[in-house]
Amino acid sequence: MEYTSKDIKDIIAEIIESRQDKGGVKSLYFVGCGGSLGALYPAHIFMEQEGVSIQSALINSSEFVHSTPKGFGKNSILCLACHKGNTPETIAAAKLGREMGAAVIILTWLEESEIIQYGDYVVRYTFDASPDHLAGDIDYAGEKTICALLVAVETVNQIEGYEHYDKFYEGVGRITGIIKKARAQVADRAVAFAREYKNDNFIYTMGSGAGYGAAYMECVCIFMEMQWLNSSSIHTGEYFHGPFEVTDANRPFMIQISEGSTRELDERCLTFLKKYAKRIEVLDAKELGLSTIDASVIDYFNHSLFNNVYPIYNHELASERKHPLTTRRYMWQVEY
Amino acid sequence: MEYTSKDIKDIIAEIIESRQDKGGVKSLYFVGCGGSLGALYPAHIFMEQEGVSIQSALINSSEFVHSTPKGFGKNSILCLACHKGNTPETIAAAKLGREMGAAVIILTWLEESEIIQYGDYVVRYTFDASPDHLAGDIDYAGEKTICALLVAVETVNQIEGYEHYDKFYEGVGRITGIIKKARAQVADRAVAFAREYKNDNFIYTMGSGAGYGAAYMECVCIFMEMQWLNSSSIHTGEYFHGPFEVTDANRPFMIQISEGSTRELDERCLTFLKKYAKRIEVLDAKELGLSTIDASVIDYFNHSLFNNVYPIYNHELASERKHPLTTRRYMWQVEY
Repeated sequence: MEYTSKDIKDIIAEIIESRQDKGGVKSLYFVGCGGSLGALYPAHIFMEQEGVSIQSALINSSEFVHSTPKGFGKNSILCLACHKGNTPETIAAAKLGREMGAAVIILTWLEESEIIQYGDYVVRYTFDASPDHLAGDIDYAGEKTICALLVAVETVNQIEGYEHYDKFYEGVGRITGIIKKARAQVADRAVAFAREYKNDNFIYTMGSGAGYGAAYMECVCIFMEMQWLNSSSIHTGEYFHGPFEVTDANRPFMIQISEGSTRELDERCLTFLKKYAKRIEVLDAKELGLSTIDASVIDYFNHSLFNNVYPIYNHELASERKHPLTTRRYMWQVEY
Repeated sequence: MEYTSKDIKDIIAEIIESRQDKGGVKSLYFVGCGGSLGALYPAHIFMEQEGVSIQSALINSSEFVHSTPKGFGKNSILCLACHKGNTPETIAAAKLGREMGAAVIILTWLEESEIIQYGDYVVRYTFDASPDHLAGDIDYAGEKTICALLVAVETVNQIEGYEHYDKFYEGVGRITGIIKKARAQVADRAVAFAREYKNDNFIYTMGSGAGYGAAYMECVCIFMEMQWLNSSSIHTGEYFHGPFEVTDANRPFMIQISEGSTRELDERCLTFLKKYAKRIEVLDAKELGLSTIDASVIDYFNHSLFNNVYPIYNHELASERKHPLTTRRYMWQVEY
């Protein structure tokens, strides 16, 4: 019952086999809260893009429990992310999954926790918990985002075939090296960023495609949760249909320029921002070296890159603002 | 080729029949930009909740064109919303839909526009364009949100059956009366709201379930686009997993308390806000009279109610801030 990310291929094979005489696997639900939900975003987008016969949904744990889709049940895989295994809403979702006969895969960091008793499969992911944010000597390919992607990739490949399967695993093999280099590459600009924005009380994040989840996570987990800054994540495809009217010389934007199919959306926003905004921080996946990954699968690796480059900025910002990333006023402090 | 919302049942029947020997209808894509995307949100959630065998996705028009799902094609329905029929990204999506053999349904307001040439079916929806926001003498059941919902309801019902079909249409029959009453009901509190928040430069919107799209629309189309206020829409299920750390006595929150399955999520946030925030504006669907709609379908009507109650607040706020809702600095003014 205990697996590592290396076994995801086997986990999916076992699930598919166990349902062969019962209608097969028809749907894949990605469920979590906050950062754990954001980390599942690329996997859901992969399903939306590459899956033809398998339904997929990305749903907040509490909404999933209170408003469970009619199609959810024994023909479903429920893939949950729960960092320390103690989020009550995600535990409730896992429990519901087990009761309803779904195949429950739990992505988690700790060895032992409350949630694992409800998992048919428990995948322990890697996570950079080191206080030295520049060391970053971990296997980024073992993080929850890639684990969830592999659940999606294996499900599609084993049920209906995935043309770019080998290229995808080549990308997985490359991502750790790319991230390490990119983190070093932004070290100086992160210091400048922290000095520039230390007195702001608001910052927008922007992104698109499978990488949008990283912009969402930076917004809710870092700026809002860890820095108490007002923030909002804007999809670059949506920017020109409302949000862009707030643009001016003072409002700060942190924008992801993805590599892959939605790059044009991001670049269009950047062109506009360069004309009408003055305070822009650009994370460009191409400049940060993502392009050695094959074009057929590169979309799905933007998230891992951005999500692991942000921490370099975050640590500098927290330090400059004298507001440690660990400070909370409500989370784990009061009842809610 | 020209239809009204009354004919949506027939449109779906015709589409299903036309694909009977070609593999049937397997997927439904809801595509639009900004407010037009937000208006399709409840229909996508309906599919996610009530559909079992039909795939559904909600995708920004530009992302859809640049990153088209592999499953999209002759077995798909493409349901687009385009208010004046002139949004280039949505026109491109409609064109792509036609080229790829999908059944293209265009929801639009104007009689004539560039987009309609690409529609297999054109549904003209109602829209309150009156400058007198309190008159509100339109058929709210004919708005784009309900039209899109009927596309979803008819697709599910005609392909796999929808248990609450009659109750749903009863709800459609009731929503206009409920909205008219609710709009009158908030008139005084909207004046107070405008006075209280006229000098703020930031406001959060909050919501959940099928009604979340209304919180998104209020955020991007009104606060950001029409009032140039910084804003962010927070899902109430996500609030306790990051966003709630920004809560304090000064930051304003406008929160939707839905009726139906996700009400508990919203109420939990409200309880917390009442303790730690001081500036909260509550839109409660129960208090606003939504509950005469049957519990089995009420989730899907929150959006229409909230989306038509917000304008009462918006007009007062615009008037108090002396910033007309029609003022733009970029949209239709500069190249982008």
